Amino acid sequence: MTLQQKKADLLIHPDCIVPVLPHGVVLQNHSIALSEGCISALLPRPEAEAINAHEIVELPGHALLPGFINCHGHAAMSLLRGYADDQPLMPWLEQYIWPAEQAHVNEGFVEDGTELAIAEMVRSGTTTFSDMYFFPDVCAATAQKLGMRCQITFPIFDFATAWGLDADDYIRKGLALRDDFKHSPLTTVVFGPHAPYTVCESNLAKVATLAAELDAPVQIHLHETVTEVLQAAAQYEERPLDMLHRLGLLSPRTQCVHMTDLRDEDIALLAATGAHVVHCPQSNMKLASGICRVSNLLEAGVNVALGTDSAASNNDLNMFGEMQTAALLAKLQSGDASVLAAADALAMATINGAKALGLEDRVGSLEVGKQADLIAVDLSGPETQPLYHPLSQLVYACNGSQVTHSWIGGEPVLERRQLTRINLEALARRVSAWQHQINDTASRPK
Amino acid sequence: MTLQQKKADLLIHPDCIVPVLPHGVVLQNHSIALSEGCISALLPRPEAEAINAHEIVELPGHALLPGFINCHGHAAMSLLRGYADDQPLMPWLEQYIWPAEQAHVNEGFVEDGTELAIAEMVRSGTTTFSDMYFFPDVCAATAQKLGMRCQITFPIFDFATAWGLDADDYIRKGLALRDDFKHSPLTTVVFGPHAPYTVCESNLAKVATLAAELDAPVQIHLHETVTEVLQAAAQYEERPLDMLHRLGLLSPRTQCVHMTDLRDEDIALLAATGAHVVHCPQSNMKLASGICRVSNLLEAGVNVALGTDSAASNNDLNMFGEMQTAALLAKLQSGDASVLAAADALAMATINGAKALGLEDRVGSLEVGKQADLIAVDLSGPETQPLYHPLSQLVYACNGSQVTHSWIGGEPVLERRQLTRINLEALARRVSAWQHQINDTASRPK
Repeated sequence: MTLQQKKADLLIHPDCIVPVLPHGVVLQNHSIALSEGCISALLPRPEAEAINAHEIVELPGHALLPGFINCHGHAAMSLLRGYADDQPLMPWLEQYIWPAEQAHVNEGFVEDGTELAIAEMVRSGTTTFSDMYFFPDVCAATAQKLGMRCQITFPIFDFATAWGLDADDYIRKGLALRDDFKHSPLTTVVFGPHAPYTVCESNLAKVATLAAELDAPVQIHLHETVTEVLQAAAQYEERPLDMLHRLGLLSPRTQCVHMTDLRDEDIALLAATGAHVVHCPQSNMKLASGICRVSNLLEAGVNVALGTDSAASNNDLNMFGEMQTAALLAKLQSGDASVLAAADALAMATINGAKALGLEDRVGSLEVGKQADLIAVDLSGPETQPLYHPLSQLVYACNGSQVTHSWIGGEPVLERRQLTRINLEALARRVSAWQHQINDTASRPK
Repeated sequence: MTLQQKKADLLIHPDCIVPVLPHGVVLQNHSIALSEGCISALLPRPEAEAINAHEIVELPGHALLPGFINCHGHAAMSLLRGYADDQPLMPWLEQYIWPAEQAHVNEGFVEDGTELAIAEMVRSGTTTFSDMYFFPDVCAATAQKLGMRCQITFPIFDFATAWGLDADDYIRKGLALRDDFKHSPLTTVVFGPHAPYTVCESNLAKVATLAAELDAPVQIHLHETVTEVLQAAAQYEERPLDMLHRLGLLSPRTQCVHMTDLRDEDIALLAATGAHVVHCPQSNMKLASGICRVSNLLEAGVNVALGTDSAASNNDLNMFGEMQTAALLAKLQSGDASVLAAADALAMATINGAKALGLEDRVGSLEVGKQADLIAVDLSGPETQPLYHPLSQLVYACNGSQVTHSWIGGEPVLERRQLTRINLEALARRVSAWQHQINDTASRPK
């Protein structure tokens, strides 16, 4: 026993602990100690009770597990939740989302939208999110203020938007932001070239060079629909994934988001290069984009993480729903109910996400020495009883409202379902003001 | 103005009302009055305020809508929630579910399991459920005691189970139960021949004759998997749906549950006969059964309702999740994001369910004269803001925990999220006892 185990800032006694690593394990009658923002002990309760803790939290009926890692989203777009639904992808973008963004997106929009997203994410168990949106500096500052861990992917386009003029401008601003946050314990800043159809080959090559030089992650929308792949193949005689590979952009630092169009050769290429896939099942279904072949990817050894995408195409940021949908969709697609078992879905939402973001040494599982990013889930309600297997309940029966507590780097961000750092009433007033402004000024087609 | 509109037992002032009929309508600043268990007025708030009501409930931030109608389930199986997951259908049934049922199902199991199911259903907005399980008399009595509306489908098999000896015995007991409840305001009792592979042709013919004579509904599991259909076709040279048609079992009184295997001719036959389809998307996905062609059915004019199936194969009884999954799955399957819009999914969960159960004159929409089966959903939280379109939020952003109030036949069954007729602590103790008994005695294969 080390000194660390004899003192602790906080000692938590739940009913059970799901550490995620080792895979599929549930520890009954165990406790966890936090010190200086990290997990300092994970022990059977009788041994843990010997620890001299500054604070003790008893959580009968609860499971304790790592917080979720939402690997793809556009947080500020929560202000456009439900603004336009039931539209095919291109009309949805061209007639609704892009005009609304053009008219309204500014620093205030990103600040308020990000806070709204974080409120929802924390209440449903997410402790780390990845973001790709305009004004990534505002998103980074907002997340830092609210104590939320995040990967900021600064967006890169060939063309001007509210945040930049051209690819060089985006990259310059993005790298400055990366520099600002290089010592941040909560924030990483990485490259976010939007997609192969919005960033030309020479700009993607620049990203490849710079990202390799800086050993920095890259997140990109890729193969979201068959149409995207067919158009690229017709125009360039090369599929987007192959082009990225030729440019040196597929590596263990690459996060490929969506990937609904996958040939066997694509899966082999992803496995060979160590690139990660971020699966967004609810968004892919809602926009009728297609199905990512998750079970085949996992079989091939590709790391598959989960993302909600934005609340404008989901319409929630709830990783419980995403885990459940990922598991159900994989079973349906493969015709095999044993595919993507509960433990696999939970791993996708936690440790696989940490691997995708290059954070697996810090988060994604409950192990001594890792950052104390963890959530408590109350399994005592009628929705989650009886309790034969906590993993089944977490993946197939929880809806997010059972999350009672959350800590990020040891700091409490949710206590007894109350957000510690967000004033919901004040936030609601600002969100309502945005709603009225957007409704009043938009010339909406219906 | 009638006298009914001048007095009322209860007057409710929400932010908006979603009556479901007319389709897609949202009434802002309207109120609803209840009298003698029925909806007596639905008016703009200023007019409603003239009503002399015994009680007034203010629900700022809430939408009021008809309670959901869960058209297929096995309520007592909630006691087997999460008992076995991630198994293919036949091993799941043969190695886990059937042995557990054989060892444990009795009247007490059905009483406690049904109460657990009703607790979950009421908390997530369901006001009517259909049930097919052993000891349907116990389920009927439990639902009646708890003030829950239900359709009891008494099960019919060729073989003996805990509740009966053979088809004649099931039918005799079932018709006695139907007689017991013939004057019940909350309960209907109908025929539940389990499936074409568990009830032979001559027994199905008996059901057809008796159901026609009594003008009674019939619910049957049908075309749940391709395998089921192929086996029947190989054995009898006839698909199950065609056999049911030949026996006179397809009519507007017939509820066909699952129907994942559908040819164009099947859809035409369902449309021509007026038979209903009960779609259980989450169960079909989780057991890898297949996808029901919902958008084609709706186009052809077939009435499609929704069911959760049991918590052993879902693993929840939450109709919000079922609506969302139905909408997303239909978009994915059709490759068209505009298919099964929010209003359509909500109709499936309400008025279409009422039509399927033959209750559309009583429930399924908020119309004057109908039974007061309605729920209040709090849309003021960060998960459901901003609020451009209440229908989008209800279908795509709610998870069930936003349901604050529920009335069935005008009686409050949920108030400020508290169940009025169920003691959750006492229920939890009984559920826990079942869990231990089932765990202790089962010789489980893993």
